[in-house]
Amino acid sequence: MDSRTGLPVVGMVGGGQLARMTHQAAIALGQSLRVLAVAPDDGAALVAAEVQIGRHDDLDALREFAKGCDVVTFDHEHVPGDLIRTLAAEGVTLLPGADALRYAQNKKAMREHLGALGFPVPRWTAGDIGAFADEVGWPLIVKTATGGYDGRGVFVAESLADVPEGVEVIAEELVQLRRELAAVVARSPLGQVAAYPIVETVQEGGICVEVLAPAPDLHEDSAVLATRLAIDIATRLDVVGVLAVELFETTDGRLLINELAMRPHNSAHWTIEGARTSQFEQHLRAVLDYPMGDTQLTAPAVVMVNVLGGEQRGESGGMSIDERLHHLFAEEPGAKVHLYGKQVRPGRKIGHVTVLGDDMADCRRRAGRAARILEEGYQH
Amino acid sequence: MDSRTGLPVVGMVGGGQLARMTHQAAIALGQSLRVLAVAPDDGAALVAAEVQIGRHDDLDALREFAKGCDVVTFDHEHVPGDLIRTLAAEGVTLLPGADALRYAQNKKAMREHLGALGFPVPRWTAGDIGAFADEVGWPLIVKTATGGYDGRGVFVAESLADVPEGVEVIAEELVQLRRELAAVVARSPLGQVAAYPIVETVQEGGICVEVLAPAPDLHEDSAVLATRLAIDIATRLDVVGVLAVELFETTDGRLLINELAMRPHNSAHWTIEGARTSQFEQHLRAVLDYPMGDTQLTAPAVVMVNVLGGEQRGESGGMSIDERLHHLFAEEPGAKVHLYGKQVRPGRKIGHVTVLGDDMADCRRRAGRAARILEEGYQH
Repeated sequence: MDSRTGLPVVGMVGGGQLARMTHQAAIALGQSLRVLAVAPDDGAALVAAEVQIGRHDDLDALREFAKGCDVVTFDHEHVPGDLIRTLAAEGVTLLPGADALRYAQNKKAMREHLGALGFPVPRWTAGDIGAFADEVGWPLIVKTATGGYDGRGVFVAESLADVPEGVEVIAEELVQLRRELAAVVARSPLGQVAAYPIVETVQEGGICVEVLAPAPDLHEDSAVLATRLAIDIATRLDVVGVLAVELFETTDGRLLINELAMRPHNSAHWTIEGARTSQFEQHLRAVLDYPMGDTQLTAPAVVMVNVLGGEQRGESGGMSIDERLHHLFAEEPGAKVHLYGKQVRPGRKIGHVTVLGDDMADCRRRAGRAARILEEGYQH
Repeated sequence: MDSRTGLPVVGMVGGGQLARMTHQAAIALGQSLRVLAVAPDDGAALVAAEVQIGRHDDLDALREFAKGCDVVTFDHEHVPGDLIRTLAAEGVTLLPGADALRYAQNKKAMREHLGALGFPVPRWTAGDIGAFADEVGWPLIVKTATGGYDGRGVFVAESLADVPEGVEVIAEELVQLRRELAAVVARSPLGQVAAYPIVETVQEGGICVEVLAPAPDLHEDSAVLATRLAIDIATRLDVVGVLAVELFETTDGRLLINELAMRPHNSAHWTIEGARTSQFEQHLRAVLDYPMGDTQLTAPAVVMVNVLGGEQRGESGGMSIDERLHHLFAEEPGAKVHLYGKQVRPGRKIGHVTVLGDDMADCRRRAGRAARILEEGYQH
């Protein structure tokens, strides 16, 4: 507890944009997020009052960080499970716990466990890929068991020659996709689960570029099923905090589980303005065992578009990011901008834009234009 | 400019809740608010990454603070005008400027200037109060020219014996009130003005306790007039940033100007969730000369209730603030809570609660109950 405020102290391991936006939510709750960041110019380290510089895989750094925190949670999946277990054994409260987090850290463990529990997953193997391909046909999707994100660690393999060596992989059938969906819930230690409406996530090159809330033209049965899947997974895996379940909707209308994330997730950034309670506040409420907040939409249509770093042009060449903001705000007074304080690198998520309205197509057009102005400068 | 992000740096003098909430808005814009706070446990100092401890009436502290800021703005009205002028002469950009801010700092100067410009103000005098009372009758409202806020520095005088001595005061007629309203606008250096819907502010003992947005049953002509008054004042006084105009609506339907504030204001805290662009983001956009954001309401009815410090009970006696939050969230999952990180003192604003909905009476009931739980603990 913070003796200055009488309120609990939450620490987040990792100083990226998720911690940055969680700090914003923490401020409203009377708190000040403690952040363990790798570098002082990490997005969250630039804005938080209580920052420790250290690595997420350094037990001493984690131990030091946990001192004075009522609960420690995570901005990413990269804290080794044995370190989490060690700290937990020393009396630190870490949420989600290592047993749950394992299924967000290791795709093989996740596929095995969800399959064993009867949840719908694509056909997959961790064994003989050639034999598996004989059964389901090439191409296959090959994924490294650990460490992948934003399309990294995921490959389309046309033959065994495309399968990476020297690293643990799993192979999956190439699912016939209608689209990708995400079901995001938050669960408290007490077991209360709050679910956001099911959204459609639009991917390009393995990176989420756009999220539509609620998912357009989703059959009511599918929405109920997707929500139930996420709630059941959160409960069965004893997840505490936000759980994002990335789903495939197949061309024949089935839902298959793609990935799990146990932290605030890109597929729910739209909730900052688009839901009564943001996923960041919800994550804090969950790990503190506060009752969950209202998840209803604040508008009929909400669209979030990620802003990706393009060619770096800087002050001298093209249009600075500050100039771009001027143009964007002039063009779209209702666009809500979130910049993460990151240096621009090609393909890197440097921010996102959210637009709310009555018409999904109109919101997509406006949010897309706003993001393009931030990425490329004003287009005549 | 912050070389790490390529974005401008805003400094705010004063470390209270307005700076605290402005920092939240700054984060989304890719920035990190610099704060000059009197003490390290000021509300904003607890949550901002870049804090200087120093006084707002210390020229050296202000000068040091202004270094590296693209623009300096204010959390309160207490920076002496001559210091602002000195820094401006040295090349610092301070917004609003001293010439505008004077009318938020000195009630006599404000009444004189607004009256001279033809704006509607109550009958008042800075001269012979006895003679003035002979004209308009007792009781009068007596105000110190400078330094009052939240009801301090304002007195109801039944006779000359009630008029404080040794301090510059003005006296005003006791207006026959229907209610109080507020018109909040933001203006950029370029001259763009964005106006929020007119709200009703409910006062108790000179302290704003509740804000209703939009003001219920306000005649369309009055709404237009109130908005026009605020836009005209912002323009005529060359205000940059948020301007709040507190208004009396008289029993015979006239609008009279009560007070001015040139900073984010309690009467617009509802905009954080209740408008597409919060007043805090709007203030930042204004002082940076970004185009203004969309001010439309996000729900038909929005109610903000201030949370005032009651009897301090602490952990041992009654219910801690953390326990109260649990009860509040259980009872009102849709209530949005903002705590300011302040120690509880009787009558002090320690936070606010906002509720959105379709029905004003229902929102008032829910917001009021939420605030009471925070003030008093759960009531069986």
